[in-house]
Amino acid sequence: MTSTSNPTRRHETQIVVDPDVPLVRIVREFDAPPAKVFRAHVDPELFARWTGPKGMEMRIERYDCRTGGAYRYVMSQDGEDYGFNGVFHEVRQDELIVQTFAFEGMPDDVALEKIVLEDLGGGRTRLTSTSLVDSFEGRDGFVASGMEVGVTEGYEKLDELLADGGVR
Amino acid sequence: MTSTSNPTRRHETQIVVDPDVPLVRIVREFDAPPAKVFRAHVDPELFARWTGPKGMEMRIERYDCRTGGAYRYVMSQDGEDYGFNGVFHEVRQDELIVQTFAFEGMPDDVALEKIVLEDLGGGRTRLTSTSLVDSFEGRDGFVASGMEVGVTEGYEKLDELLADGGVR
Repeated sequence: MTSTSNPTRRHETQIVVDPDVPLVRIVREFDAPPAKVFRAHVDPELFARWTGPKGMEMRIERYDCRTGGAYRYVMSQDGEDYGFNGVFHEVRQDELIVQTFAFEGMPDDVALEKIVLEDLGGGRTRLTSTSLVDSFEGRDGFVASGMEVGVTEGYEKLDELLADGGVR
Repeated sequence: MTSTSNPTRRHETQIVVDPDVPLVRIVREFDAPPAKVFRAHVDPELFARWTGPKGMEMRIERYDCRTGGAYRYVMSQDGEDYGFNGVFHEVRQDELIVQTFAFEGMPDDVALEKIVLEDLGGGRTRLTSTSLVDSFEGRDGFVASGMEVGVTEGYEKLDELLADGGVR
């Protein structure tokens, strides 16, 4: 499965379900060096500005993005709250974030996520984000839940944030 | 794969590799109620007394076993140190521990572990521990690394600790 949410954008967001293990792999390039893409992930104020689908309100309750830290945020739309939380197993400067992720409506379906940043040179970065769960049913349910919209729209907001000088 | 490391013991430790997903499942019963088995996992002094193979020295550097906490410990034998670390995604009293786990010699091979305690009645508990990784090669390497000895011997030490009144 590959989606291009907005054909006027230069970069497409690839969302691929692995055939062998219950994992979703997201690949996306950005016109910014790894240091800036990394900062947009670890700084709570920046993270809040781009994460999630357009039109949802994002409220960060805790976001301590360092090895051994934890996070919780709530997305809201039409009066409904959706809480998410997890812990950061490892945060390696400009390279890697390994974290857990849970939607609080299904707290026992915990995912292990890895975000890897590769320097493509010329001020460009390839981000590969994988989400691993313990069953194919769980993985396919996650994909069917509409995560694609949140991911692609979120990265479009991140493109804008990186382009407008919001990440120093 | 099922192993009984010591036939004089009443409880065997079952270690099973899942055929469909890259996961190892360990099942073990204990002659103690869930509250005591749980306490032996969350209290760092107790945890240090039973975890790992016999004859290895265990040194806990950090062990904050609560939701959002982190841990690091070092096992030593013959002058060699083996470090392990991770974070606790969720610690639910007497029921569940969800954590990450990494051997520091292979820091990018992170496992997502769930320990579930079931009350069998009559002061008995069934523990089911699953370790999920992102490849079958990684899972099979973990099993081949000798983890079976550490797990079965560790649980034998836990039997003794539970029996001798060391866990209140």
